[in-house]
Amino acid sequence: MKKQLTIDLNCDMGESFGPWKMGDDEAVLPYVSAVNIACGFHAGDPSTMMKTIQLALKYKVKIGAHPGFQDLVGFGRREMQLTAREVYALVVYQVGALAACAKVQQTTLQHVKPHGALYNMAARKPELADAIAAAVYDIDPRLVLYGLSGSELIRAGRAKGLNVYREVFADRTYQQDGTLTPRSDKHALIHDPKQAAEQVVGMIKTGKVVSLQGTTVDIQADTICLHGDGEEAVQFARTVNQTLKDNQILIR
Amino acid sequence: MKKQLTIDLNCDMGESFGPWKMGDDEAVLPYVSAVNIACGFHAGDPSTMMKTIQLALKYKVKIGAHPGFQDLVGFGRREMQLTAREVYALVVYQVGALAACAKVQQTTLQHVKPHGALYNMAARKPELADAIAAAVYDIDPRLVLYGLSGSELIRAGRAKGLNVYREVFADRTYQQDGTLTPRSDKHALIHDPKQAAEQVVGMIKTGKVVSLQGTTVDIQADTICLHGDGEEAVQFARTVNQTLKDNQILIR
Amino acid sequence: MKKQLTIDLNCDMGESFGPWKMGDDEAVLPYVSAVNIACGFHAGDPSTMMKTIQLALKYKVKIGAHPGFQDLVGFGRREMQLTAREVYALVVYQVGALAACAKVQQTTLQHVKPHGALYNMAARKPELADAIAAAVYDIDPRLVLYGLSGSELIRAGRAKGLNVYREVFADRTYQQDGTLTPRSDKHALIHDPKQAAEQVVGMIKTGKVVSLQGTTVDIQADTICLHGDGEEAVQFARTVNQTLKDNQILIR
Amino acid sequence: MKKQLTIDLNCDMGESFGPWKMGDDEAVLPYVSAVNIACGFHAGDPSTMMKTIQLALKYKVKIGAHPGFQDLVGFGRREMQLTAREVYALVVYQVGALAACAKVQQTTLQHVKPHGALYNMAARKPELADAIAAAVYDIDPRLVLYGLSGSELIRAGRAKGLNVYREVFADRTYQQDGTLTPRSDKHALIHDPKQAAEQVVGMIKTGKVVSLQGTTVDIQADTICLHGDGEEAVQFARTVNQTLKDNQILIR
Repeated sequence: MKKQLTIDLNCDMGESFGPWKMGDDEAVLPYVSAVNIACGFHAGDPSTMMKTIQLALKYKVKIGAHPGFQDLVGFGRREMQLTAREVYALVVYQVGALAACAKVQQTTLQHVKPHGALYNMAARKPELADAIAAAVYDIDPRLVLYGLSGSELIRAGRAKGLNVYREVFADRTYQQDGTLTPRSDKHALIHDPKQAAEQVVGMIKTGKVVSLQGTTVDIQADTICLHGDGEEAVQFARTVNQTLKDNQILIR
Repeated sequence: MKKQLTIDLNCDMGESFGPWKMGDDEAVLPYVSAVNIACGFHAGDPSTMMKTIQLALKYKVKIGAHPGFQDLVGFGRREMQLTAREVYALVVYQVGALAACAKVQQTTLQHVKPHGALYNMAARKPELADAIAAAVYDIDPRLVLYGLSGSELIRAGRAKGLNVYREVFADRTYQQDGTLTPRSDKHALIHDPKQAAEQVVGMIKTGKVVSLQGTTVDIQADTICLHGDGEEAVQFARTVNQTLKDNQILIR
Repeated sequence: MKKQLTIDLNCDMGESFGPWKMGDDEAVLPYVSAVNIACGFHAGDPSTMMKTIQLALKYKVKIGAHPGFQDLVGFGRREMQLTAREVYALVVYQVGALAACAKVQQTTLQHVKPHGALYNMAARKPELADAIAAAVYDIDPRLVLYGLSGSELIRAGRAKGLNVYREVFADRTYQQDGTLTPRSDKHALIHDPKQAAEQVVGMIKTGKVVSLQGTTVDIQADTICLHGDGEEAVQFARTVNQTLKDNQILIR
Repeated sequence: MKKQLTIDLNCDMGESFGPWKMGDDEAVLPYVSAVNIACGFHAGDPSTMMKTIQLALKYKVKIGAHPGFQDLVGFGRREMQLTAREVYALVVYQVGALAACAKVQQTTLQHVKPHGALYNMAARKPELADAIAAAVYDIDPRLVLYGLSGSELIRAGRAKGLNVYREVFADRTYQQDGTLTPRSDKHALIHDPKQAAEQVVGMIKTGKVVSLQGTTVDIQADTICLHGDGEEAVQFARTVNQTLKDNQILIR
């Protein structure tokens, strides 16, 4: 008897702010199993958060918090030097705010995934990773922590006793040491949805990925990150979703 | 057998922001039974909120959320025209953020009291009052709602089935219709701590207050608002606290 | 010899913020003679302001500042109770910031037009109108002040000695007292570009407009407001622009 | 005939924000010759900027802009990764805003000094230093640029053709390579006002400073930074000011 392969497909959502719209959340929702909702610091505002949860409920996807640096104009993508204590408080605040928006709509959060520069810094800085893991655990130890596969954040979450999801990217290439090719490299992104979908299927089936250098690298994937904004977001989501189904991989 | 008179003494706290300090929270804490903690929109920030809860725990006072308009530079004291739906989301967000800061310190919120212009508008605008009461109820029906005695907010909280605390002010004079004398009037404030304390004792013992016009007005007091900033804050708090004790009124 | 009729066509621009785009500025620019650029309080940010000025220079349109309330999430459309002194400082700050962005690109500001709720409040509140006019005059008495035709702001600008442009709206209907039909009324907006263009031509040629009630009302138009966002913005701009030209009205 | 030694004494000012007060600006003003006024991004707001300029005029000190990162809660002291282009726009915006506040009070800016993390990053990162120097030059080539003595910012200002003031610190110790002892070192700060004053006099008279390691290091001082907040700010300012006078050094 063959083991059923499963995977989680997640996408950032609720990244509109006040009068400004970002992404077409509803067009992507049919293809994902989990959404990471911005919590008001790098994107999102209380009303947008309320509406995004309503939308997530309509499509029956799992809801997670997507806390980021307090840098609206930079969309939380610019590194900021915060202490571990500041990061702890910032995560507690944002996850708590979203959790209340969920509670008043009779639902709960499933996971937390840091956003942008906070995600990247938590992948490589142990003290930030530990602060985030501690914040998530202290809010609710049943929350799942999403982090870059192989990162400090995954290590920190496990050390704390949290359930972790190791994240891989459909549309990014990998280096031979297992890290993502930096965005500054012209080969960083995969633009062809089919190629992206096949990379993902390979990761899930074999636990390996072919690096940009042509070597084969071990990689563990519990969840795949899809992007919600940009022209090709919907097409990517649909293609990855369909290719997984074609390969009998269950999206849950 | 005489009935034991009791009263709640509350004070706004955690109104510092980033590097800026406001009030001497720790000096006032020994004299109050409940604190209303700013939630980041008109004052307060995640780190300040964490520290203020820690301080409240040290002094064993009840902890409440103090949500306000998103107007830092105006300290939430300037009226803003928000829809009822926007107010609902804004209250859910802020109370949720503080609730998480409480939860990670193994405590919970007892109450919610709107701040500044939001408090004033909720006292007279039924739709805003209803939005706030609904938000508080939906977050947790056991939360107590603090509002101006005799106001729309008290009515809305009761209609929703919440436990409400009718608030009176130690340092403000009253009009013959039971409303507060507007701050623009030179007789709006009571500057003598003893006089303020006596007004409060009278309200609790008799359910009445002498208005600025000399008439006697009915007023119900479940909680007294003390102010935490300003030169005389500590002296006021100490005097009101002592006078209540001298009159065998239990502060709980 | 017939007198040459002229009109100014203005449009709000630079209303993007950080990663969020609003409107298609470049598509509207060929049809207008002046742009009002957001200054960072209700929309816009330093980098967006720099780029928008660059774009305005490319299309050789007049550049103006569009100061608003500090309410990003509400896009400056929610009334806020500020003192006249606060409004004065807020206008000086924002106009100065944009003026510097213009200066480093070797250009200067031609005008100032308040945004959203500030525009509406300045139309009816003399003390706010006076504060705005004083701020504009004190920054540079050669700046033109744009305000609603017939409003307090126009009166205040004239009283101060400023050159004023009385603004009318192509896509809004008018009441028999000369005021705009409130947006809450279902007949507030004109959706047909041709009808809007004809209303505008009539105003310029006759100094009158037919009100929603069918009466004829006096109205003076120095500049017409076009909207830069929304699906039909470009079509509206093109139609109004062409209709004016077909009627030998010079857009300057 | 002996050459008259002169020095500039500068202090950060206008660092209050909305209802929050920081420092006692008026107590320090009698002892300094120049002030650096916060421009609303890390501290300050339009009304505070207006009042601070008024105060500076009363004490007849030179007025400069003190632009910083947009990080209120972190007071602009946390490093942020901005592009050179973003920094250019951020400096233009803030200096322009303050320049307008000065202009409406019939005065002009003399200088620009970056704040906090922006100052520190500009001291060591050539591309940020160049962006700041270009912004200052493009706004007004007559503006003086204040930067850490020996830093990239001083180099960039000179390369651009700006008049630069090399800044030294009264209350900080120096390393044998001429850099400031990092604040993380327990010997970073000089707590004795007399010792600070003597270090400053030595720098001005000899062009040298004794490092923490005991070696003598070259250092050029055109301006001395005093701090405006903290308990000992006024005492420090008074002592440094008096010691300079006692040594026949002219504060201009």
